[in-house]
Amino acid sequence: MFQGGAHVTDRKEIEAILDHYRTAVYAKDVDAFIELYDEDARVFDLWGRWLYRGSAEWRKPAAEWFGSLGTERSSPEFHDVQIDFGDGVAAVHAFVTYKGLSAEGKELRSMDNRITWVLRKNSEGAWKIVHEHTSAPADFETGKVTLRR
Amino acid sequence: MFQGGAHVTDRKEIEAILDHYRTAVYAKDVDAFIELYDEDARVFDLWGRWLYRGSAEWRKPAAEWFGSLGTERSSPEFHDVQIDFGDGVAAVHAFVTYKGLSAEGKELRSMDNRITWVLRKNSEGAWKIVHEHTSAPADFETGKVTLRR
Repeated sequence: MFQGGAHVTDRKEIEAILDHYRTAVYAKDVDAFIELYDEDARVFDLWGRWLYRGSAEWRKPAAEWFGSLGTERSSPEFHDVQIDFGDGVAAVHAFVTYKGLSAEGKELRSMDNRITWVLRKNSEGAWKIVHEHTSAPADFETGKVTLRR
Repeated sequence: MFQGGAHVTDRKEIEAILDHYRTAVYAKDVDAFIELYDEDARVFDLWGRWLYRGSAEWRKPAAEWFGSLGTERSSPEFHDVQIDFGDGVAAVHAFVTYKGLSAEGKELRSMDNRITWVLRKNSEGAWKIVHEHTSAPADFETGKVTLRR
């Protein structure tokens, strides 16, 4: 669902961001991954910390994530994508499934997350993520997050 | 930090939304609380479910939350509020501390969350939350969420 009377080019540009994310994660390419983010991006990540402040700080866990995969790959798939557009501002939210693939492409495991992005068009006309929020719902009794939707 | 060249009125209107939220939660007023949300709002809540779809569905856990408080109250405080504006679209993210107060106003407990809102100005010129995402970071080893920042 695309709301808010956005230009078709804006819609295509945001879809290109989703593609860029998928491709960068699959390729385990830290530079391509970090290029998605504004240098002042503020990230509320599912794991471990309340806030990553700026793309330089966000680079480290991204590199650790890709490095931890060894010969495996992570292949993200977006589901139920919702986009809201303003003038130079876009907000995206979706479910994302990270499929863990062997070097041969066999699916080994799968994890679901919820993702929200706020993007701004910068002075060069490129959309950058200024805020990311990922999570999974926590069980009220145990306090543990559920990673399958 | 207010970015994006928004009108001062927009900025004040978004600050009024934060006030409205604080006041409605403190008053345990379900009607005032639900009034903040667009009828098609999609909520990624910290607890229990992947998605609440629409303000009618979101009303039930809100009523349960307020009902569970008995004579106590919850007093939300926003910290480190960031707002991005577009034309008729705003995105807010912040830390929020819910202080649990006794009937006499004594602080009994305190819980931190991360919150992201996407708001749209509707045809009547009122800002409504079209997307909410709340979470707390999960420990990588135990999978449990941490509720103190």
